[in-house]
Amino acid sequence: MAITIQQVMDLLMAPIAPLENTVDRLEAGHPETTVTGIGVTFMPTHDVIQQAMNLGINLLITHEGVFYSHHSHTDLLQDDPVYLQKRGLIEASGIAIFRLHDYIHQYKPDKITAGLVQALHWEDCIEKVLPISTILGLPEMTVAEIAKYIKLKLGIPYVRVVGDMSMRCKRAGILVGYRGGGANAIPLMTAENLDLVIAGEGPEWETPEYVRDACRQGRRKALIVLGHAESEAPGMKALAEQLRAFLPNLPIHFLAEQPLFQIV
Amino acid sequence: MAITIQQVMDLLMAPIAPLENTVDRLEAGHPETTVTGIGVTFMPTHDVIQQAMNLGINLLITHEGVFYSHHSHTDLLQDDPVYLQKRGLIEASGIAIFRLHDYIHQYKPDKITAGLVQALHWEDCIEKVLPISTILGLPEMTVAEIAKYIKLKLGIPYVRVVGDMSMRCKRAGILVGYRGGGANAIPLMTAENLDLVIAGEGPEWETPEYVRDACRQGRRKALIVLGHAESEAPGMKALAEQLRAFLPNLPIHFLAEQPLFQIV
Repeated sequence: MAITIQQVMDLLMAPIAPLENTVDRLEAGHPETTVTGIGVTFMPTHDVIQQAMNLGINLLITHEGVFYSHHSHTDLLQDDPVYLQKRGLIEASGIAIFRLHDYIHQYKPDKITAGLVQALHWEDCIEKVLPISTILGLPEMTVAEIAKYIKLKLGIPYVRVVGDMSMRCKRAGILVGYRGGGANAIPLMTAENLDLVIAGEGPEWETPEYVRDACRQGRRKALIVLGHAESEAPGMKALAEQLRAFLPNLPIHFLAEQPLFQIV
Repeated sequence: MAITIQQVMDLLMAPIAPLENTVDRLEAGHPETTVTGIGVTFMPTHDVIQQAMNLGINLLITHEGVFYSHHSHTDLLQDDPVYLQKRGLIEASGIAIFRLHDYIHQYKPDKITAGLVQALHWEDCIEKVLPISTILGLPEMTVAEIAKYIKLKLGIPYVRVVGDMSMRCKRAGILVGYRGGGANAIPLMTAENLDLVIAGEGPEWETPEYVRDACRQGRRKALIVLGHAESEAPGMKALAEQLRAFLPNLPIHFLAEQPLFQIV
């Protein structure tokens, strides 16, 4: 049975009521095209688009946008050679790109956060699911042990840590993507009496400096920063698995990227 | 000759015309107090305040604010124990805190950027001083060599790099603090034909992903991310040196912090 891009988008947006203000949209392609294969990814990098071309996929479902801006502003990029070449590659590929950001974050529960918790095998530790965070009661481990465990489960080469590596943690809050900023993380640490925040990213002198000050005051607080992609790619990978159940006759691939940064 | 906090603030704000909208202000203390010693720092962390107390300083000049928010919003922190204890420490210390952020960035040239260029011993390489960036013509080095050089000169344990470590660079742009975001860095790379951006911090899927895509397209682009504090502390250290020349009879200390993150 043939399915169109519009039908896939409808399926992906069905779990919640339509959003009025959203960055989610079809960034390339036509809704009426029949889908021959789906790639799911964190962000359609140049390499991900090439992977999709090699796999013969004609729909990419991506969490972040194509052109390095949350609101897809491209006015500063009109003469930019990287932008022009990437746009040309996408047009030549004929691949449609659907950005699924706000909808998937508003699934009940937020599938991006749930996917990270699942990848960490911590589903049995969930104590509370809040709109922007999930609170976990972990088996008691040190910060160093948790960092090592996360790297192993996510297959990532490093995490960044603030706090005492030997501190034992039990109560952790997960804040994916850019939710690691102070306005989210600091009230959460206090309200939920967290030992540990595990975050994607956020401005460095907000939450990280708060945690450093808390430690200097003798409080048991720590922060593990995964990276934005590292925190959100597992949710998109979980989406790919879910889509396979809904669309068993279509090839559906999760398209991974290499780590963004090298530590030197 | 006695000098008041107001007189020191006037001295620090004198280089440019008064700003109407600014985060710069006296965050603690009284303008009429006579200054007995000055500490200059990137951010008044709990440890920096304790260093200042131990040194008998009564004025801290800081680039970033006290409470983990660029606009010094503390409404979410009113019952926060870390906030309350830090506020108590500051009150008990009697130390005045003057935030010098917007003024020093608007000195001609921006002293925060100039201080970083100076700490890197690259003053002779300056090709152009732009409002938010300085463009350098460096002696040709690989990305790996530049990263190693920066770590050595700034005394920092790591930098984060996007791009080919063996790529040879000559033309670099410096973007301190939070100026590493896409809206600043991406047009600059193109307009100034940069091989390399050296930035403080910025959202991960803006400039870093742009540089990754550029590399995949075969372009010679790289990014070195220093960290926010790492990129701005040298400018505040340079300010401390300058103040010593103006106020030779006052003890003036630059108060350093440890690296914020551990890489695990």
